[in-house]
Amino acid sequence: MRSPLPDYLTEVLDACTDGSGTLADYIPELANVDPDRFALSLVTAEGTTYSAGDDNHVFTIQSISKPFVYGLALEKRGFEAVLGKIDVEPSGEAFNEISLERDSGRPLNPMINAGALTAHALVADADSPGTAIEEIRALLSALAGRELDIDEKVAASEMQTTYRNVAIANLLRGYEIFCDDPDEVVAGYVRQCSVDVTTTDLAMMAGTLASGGIQPRTGVQIFSRPVVRQVLSVMATCGMYDAAGDWLSTIGIPAKSGVSGGLIGVLPGQLGIAAYSPRLDEHGTSVQGVAAFERLSRDMNLHLMDAPMVAHSALRRRQVYGEGSDAVTLLELEGDIQFTNTEQIVHAVVDEPVTTPHVAIDLTLVRTVLPVGRRMLLELMRRLHVDGIDVVLIDPDGDLPDPDAGNGYRPRVVRCLEEPRESR
Amino acid sequence: MRSPLPDYLTEVLDACTDGSGTLADYIPELANVDPDRFALSLVTAEGTTYSAGDDNHVFTIQSISKPFVYGLALEKRGFEAVLGKIDVEPSGEAFNEISLERDSGRPLNPMINAGALTAHALVADADSPGTAIEEIRALLSALAGRELDIDEKVAASEMQTTYRNVAIANLLRGYEIFCDDPDEVVAGYVRQCSVDVTTTDLAMMAGTLASGGIQPRTGVQIFSRPVVRQVLSVMATCGMYDAAGDWLSTIGIPAKSGVSGGLIGVLPGQLGIAAYSPRLDEHGTSVQGVAAFERLSRDMNLHLMDAPMVAHSALRRRQVYGEGSDAVTLLELEGDIQFTNTEQIVHAVVDEPVTTPHVAIDLTLVRTVLPVGRRMLLELMRRLHVDGIDVVLIDPDGDLPDPDAGNGYRPRVVRCLEEPRESR
Amino acid sequence: MRSPLPDYLTEVLDACTDGSGTLADYIPELANVDPDRFALSLVTAEGTTYSAGDDNHVFTIQSISKPFVYGLALEKRGFEAVLGKIDVEPSGEAFNEISLERDSGRPLNPMINAGALTAHALVADADSPGTAIEEIRALLSALAGRELDIDEKVAASEMQTTYRNVAIANLLRGYEIFCDDPDEVVAGYVRQCSVDVTTTDLAMMAGTLASGGIQPRTGVQIFSRPVVRQVLSVMATCGMYDAAGDWLSTIGIPAKSGVSGGLIGVLPGQLGIAAYSPRLDEHGTSVQGVAAFERLSRDMNLHLMDAPMVAHSALRRRQVYGEGSDAVTLLELEGDIQFTNTEQIVHAVVDEPVTTPHVAIDLTLVRTVLPVGRRMLLELMRRLHVDGIDVVLIDPDGDLPDPDAGNGYRPRVVRCLEEPRESR
Amino acid sequence: MRSPLPDYLTEVLDACTDGSGTLADYIPELANVDPDRFALSLVTAEGTTYSAGDDNHVFTIQSISKPFVYGLALEKRGFEAVLGKIDVEPSGEAFNEISLERDSGRPLNPMINAGALTAHALVADADSPGTAIEEIRALLSALAGRELDIDEKVAASEMQTTYRNVAIANLLRGYEIFCDDPDEVVAGYVRQCSVDVTTTDLAMMAGTLASGGIQPRTGVQIFSRPVVRQVLSVMATCGMYDAAGDWLSTIGIPAKSGVSGGLIGVLPGQLGIAAYSPRLDEHGTSVQGVAAFERLSRDMNLHLMDAPMVAHSALRRRQVYGEGSDAVTLLELEGDIQFTNTEQIVHAVVDEPVTTPHVAIDLTLVRTVLPVGRRMLLELMRRLHVDGIDVVLIDPDGDLPDPDAGNGYRPRVVRCLEEPRESR
Repeated sequence: MRSPLPDYLTEVLDACTDGSGTLADYIPELANVDPDRFALSLVTAEGTTYSAGDDNHVFTIQSISKPFVYGLALEKRGFEAVLGKIDVEPSGEAFNEISLERDSGRPLNPMINAGALTAHALVADADSPGTAIEEIRALLSALAGRELDIDEKVAASEMQTTYRNVAIANLLRGYEIFCDDPDEVVAGYVRQCSVDVTTTDLAMMAGTLASGGIQPRTGVQIFSRPVVRQVLSVMATCGMYDAAGDWLSTIGIPAKSGVSGGLIGVLPGQLGIAAYSPRLDEHGTSVQGVAAFERLSRDMNLHLMDAPMVAHSALRRRQVYGEGSDAVTLLELEGDIQFTNTEQIVHAVVDEPVTTPHVAIDLTLVRTVLPVGRRMLLELMRRLHVDGIDVVLIDPDGDLPDPDAGNGYRPRVVRCLEEPRESR
Repeated sequence: MRSPLPDYLTEVLDACTDGSGTLADYIPELANVDPDRFALSLVTAEGTTYSAGDDNHVFTIQSISKPFVYGLALEKRGFEAVLGKIDVEPSGEAFNEISLERDSGRPLNPMINAGALTAHALVADADSPGTAIEEIRALLSALAGRELDIDEKVAASEMQTTYRNVAIANLLRGYEIFCDDPDEVVAGYVRQCSVDVTTTDLAMMAGTLASGGIQPRTGVQIFSRPVVRQVLSVMATCGMYDAAGDWLSTIGIPAKSGVSGGLIGVLPGQLGIAAYSPRLDEHGTSVQGVAAFERLSRDMNLHLMDAPMVAHSALRRRQVYGEGSDAVTLLELEGDIQFTNTEQIVHAVVDEPVTTPHVAIDLTLVRTVLPVGRRMLLELMRRLHVDGIDVVLIDPDGDLPDPDAGNGYRPRVVRCLEEPRESR
Repeated sequence: MRSPLPDYLTEVLDACTDGSGTLADYIPELANVDPDRFALSLVTAEGTTYSAGDDNHVFTIQSISKPFVYGLALEKRGFEAVLGKIDVEPSGEAFNEISLERDSGRPLNPMINAGALTAHALVADADSPGTAIEEIRALLSALAGRELDIDEKVAASEMQTTYRNVAIANLLRGYEIFCDDPDEVVAGYVRQCSVDVTTTDLAMMAGTLASGGIQPRTGVQIFSRPVVRQVLSVMATCGMYDAAGDWLSTIGIPAKSGVSGGLIGVLPGQLGIAAYSPRLDEHGTSVQGVAAFERLSRDMNLHLMDAPMVAHSALRRRQVYGEGSDAVTLLELEGDIQFTNTEQIVHAVVDEPVTTPHVAIDLTLVRTVLPVGRRMLLELMRRLHVDGIDVVLIDPDGDLPDPDAGNGYRPRVVRCLEEPRESR
Repeated sequence: MRSPLPDYLTEVLDACTDGSGTLADYIPELANVDPDRFALSLVTAEGTTYSAGDDNHVFTIQSISKPFVYGLALEKRGFEAVLGKIDVEPSGEAFNEISLERDSGRPLNPMINAGALTAHALVADADSPGTAIEEIRALLSALAGRELDIDEKVAASEMQTTYRNVAIANLLRGYEIFCDDPDEVVAGYVRQCSVDVTTTDLAMMAGTLASGGIQPRTGVQIFSRPVVRQVLSVMATCGMYDAAGDWLSTIGIPAKSGVSGGLIGVLPGQLGIAAYSPRLDEHGTSVQGVAAFERLSRDMNLHLMDAPMVAHSALRRRQVYGEGSDAVTLLELEGDIQFTNTEQIVHAVVDEPVTTPHVAIDLTLVRTVLPVGRRMLLELMRRLHVDGIDVVLIDPDGDLPDPDAGNGYRPRVVRCLEEPRESR
């Protein structure tokens, strides 16, 4: 059987091809592209990729680099330092508006050019100013899962007309938002925007955000969870410039567009999406890209606020094995252990108390234990122990290291279900 | 075993009690409340309730009524009519700013007073203007799961000082955003804000939004999914007035506050949350309420962008029963059937093709089949059928009615797993 | 000989008739007027009137009442009280914009509706709230030099649609800019706007401002000079709403328009001008009225910044009479004695010293002695006295009462030139 | 006798010395000046100069160059070209705000930096870009009546920190408001701001505007009257940045301040004023300079709206000479012949008709005949002629060249009063 997904994506491309919009003209080199290219790629949080159209066509990343470089700045400088220099409020203004906070000059958010120039400057090491761009290229390559290059021809073309970015960089320098040479920051930023990508690359980058910062193909943790959270929040409120509210309610996918025609979206925990079509609307966003996102969101119920009832429980199975003093209640858990689904395990154990002298909590199928899940599992084990029940933790992958449940109590840890039963 | 949740909530209340902030004084009656009341309630999407503190203390709902009345307007008038009168863009302004669209006078969003007055007017039937308030009281009662009353003393108190709302209503009338008498709209709106609630009521209202519009206790579908999506989107971008970006990135919970000290939050698919503490910050939001939300979000990883990797698959179990020409591959599904988890079933079947002549797809444990899930399941069945495999659908609850897979093919539908095997 | 002025004004009317613009429609009654009426009136600071066209056609004064009621508020409450409630900054906004100062709610200036409503409320006596309108009608009558009436039909018509003014009055009440009932203030203000006038009346009102607050026909001092200064300053910067800079540089006449089609202008010390034509441009200003003002300003060099070199000197004549110890230098002054022209007298006396033992300073032809002129004349006389010269002041009208020159010196005062010579 | 004016100015300086305010620090070199310098100079429209304090202390002109360079741009490029690039509306914003018109990028007025940079660029000849600064230095020298130099040390100091001007120039270049290299425009503008002046120089520059564009000492016509009108209008509405309304109503003198501590004011037809004191308020304006202006305006009735009743008439004398058929009515005129005072002559002749067969109109004491005065005098002579009266024009200075009164009639022109009588 062939997967129906690629066919579906091809249908979406066909339905969304309408030839309206115009090529970006403010960067001379961008006016020379083939206006009819159209591509769409999806990457699931597990790393499965689906593509259709010109998905190996190469174009420059432009503003889609912004959320990732912001993430890099957060990783390198920490939240406090970055938030002190770049706010996170929607500007209600177009992408090239100046949008600085009155008095302080702090850019309103990292998705407008002022914020992106500042994020670029924050990445630079004070003692080796020219290295930021190489670090950024390496980051984007790691996100894409392959080496990416800079299109120097596009960069040079943009440098000739980028008066507005020079203006903004000088304003920021005047406010001492950064202390680097404004011309150097602009030159680095323009090269950052000129990294060559395909929709497959972009979908992989978006997919990395969707899977909590782990590149879904290579498995490398590129961003920490708090950074992913921050980047996605900013994309949700500021990614689509002056139509934040309309985009979030209609499409419901944190997103970011670039003036070369690229567009990415992230559905946390589920999907990274990327589209490419170089004809733009008046906001500088790909017309057909937006149409494809609308279609995907509507057809596939991909809306941030339309979350499925999360795995009703992390409890995959509850079963009693053996009898009498050997009787053990097996609680088999699965998925990410977070608040809601652990609450349901606790709720189940409270509602229908354990009647066997032993309980085995099996984490074999668990993917991640979030801090809240850890605290709740430990508390559950502690309370079972207080009730006189012997608890065994099956944790072959070490998902719950150092299980100190409090009051000096630690459950016994084993590697597989057979062990405890065999050991008895 | 006792659930640890109430203890945890009590801890949160203790940790967040700091006595700062001041009582609202612009409504005389609100200045007379006990400033030290503090309550916190959670309702899961399944309807389990946890509370701590003064959770049966009664206060007026105030602006927390806004998202629900907006939802009611959407249900009664449809999206087009409502969006034509109220936009959905963040205003970047305080709650009592006027925030009308230049020229048209359209309120920027339904969370500011101008939008809320318009939503109230939209609920009214042209031919019986006075009935909106009763309809709204009934809605809020249905959401809370009990009859709620209007505190006429607070309403009367507010009517004496509500010059600003009278001003806004007259501006809206001047722009013909509505054609009702401005004084009547204000009088109705003030009574809407004076409905008496507890945090348990509010958490239940929020929980209804969390569970896709279904009141989690009564099971009544109060809002359709598209309306829930819209209401939550607007809460996410406009619910916290001039700090939308900061709130979404730090707390990450679509929320709405009221000037009497209430605060609700909704984590789609997971939780409804409500807090109450009447001391307010300079935005008119409960100081301790915000602190409690911050603590909950941080401790419990309750952040919209921190979605757990959604149920890696809706495929609970894949197992082969029988042999030879009777061999059947059972695909047991669970949870909400949406895009991501169905994609994983399809992916599994493509990767490891079915080798038995029969396939049984079991929906017994399924909760809801979203449209995208329906389309994908039908396409899966069609493709299996094309490959010459006999498909049986186990659907005791009718989750997939009228299973027309296209090209005239319909799988056989049965009520339980035994049937197909017995029937063979 | 007939004056050429009326012919000239008729020419201007002919040249400026073009039939473009539309009648005001927001006050129903104003939509019923004859759109082709056109009138132009001038009043010099001496009270000479020139008119052309429909100069006895009656229309409602509307916003042209604003500067005069502002002046009345200044006279009654004093500068400090009024400035505390109404600022004087241009709003850069249309006439019906709300334009309140952030936080305080203080209207930006008295020419926008918010400021005009506040000025109206300031005129009211706290203990007899309904009397403001009668006081205002009496003021406007005194300015026009005849009894004016209120067109109650227009007032009633406007009351039906004046939602925006009700809105603004409620906002102001909410900010405690005034404490009167908002509906009463609006009702009074609407009647203030409905006072019936002709262009001759309006030109006389403008002429009163041109001649320093003295009604040029009746000679009554209606406004003090500081109030006139303030009213004209505000007309210059705020009178033409969002085109203040363009109007002042192109036309150069402090002005105020009304939505019924009236338009007044004041050239301080020179002229009051009024036009009427009810077809309006998009700012709510008379199209043909503006054209006539442009034509008058260009043709007649009526531009505030194009001031003539002021009377090179107040010294009309310097002549020596008699010989020897009887010789007297007569200094005959004329006009308004202010700084520039008195400086020239002093300059002349310094340059070409008095060589006679007597000096006679003749104020017979002087119109007004401003405080600065008084100080300079007294100082001149003191210094002549110190130089051993005998000074006589000819002041038949008492223009320089109590001429204490300092150091105990007072010049001898006589009523006519003959006296001193006869007395010797 | 010594003039009391210098003593008065010294009194003003003493009264206004209070030592508050702080030195400009954003240009490093400006922070090194003596904070206690204080000077005040007046120049009358006739060129008389009065000074007090440190009136020969040299400082850089800074923003006070703006109105003059704007005037130069108007002279060189014409009104249409300049208005197309720089609007004339008050910005309501601080001096260093960006204040560009939405969409077009046109600076709101020539008194903010964006407008001043544009005016500087407009002065440049396209084919020799570096020459603008020399042309500007020459203009300022002509206005001062002596050669002025550029303080290259201050210019170099400012160039190091002028990020904001570089930013604004790049924005303007991006909008194609000008097409010069932004860095070159900034370098030229910074040198323009660094021209060295004293208060005497500045008062002479202001006096040139006061006397209709004629340098009062050298008699050179530097600006045409329409340019003077435009420059003064813009100073009145935009010269004091965000306090235009307050300044105009309180002080009433079109003015411009500079960050080095200079301040000029112009009372059209009367006076140019300059002050210097380097301690600044929060608007970047000299604290003691403002205090001196307030004092002068109050003491000396120097308020634009407080115009004296202009020379009641241009008619200095009306006298009948001779008898019978030789009888001639002499009308001796004086001052500037503009509308108001000529109207009074006409009015007088209409009121009290000429009864002699001859009329002599004597322009010997006339300074300037404005176009409106010319038209009115010619019409007066034409109407006298039509009434059968013989008209002779005494015009020794050629103030009324080519006196074509219409219908082929031209009065006889002679050089002095004796001529006509002698000739008969």
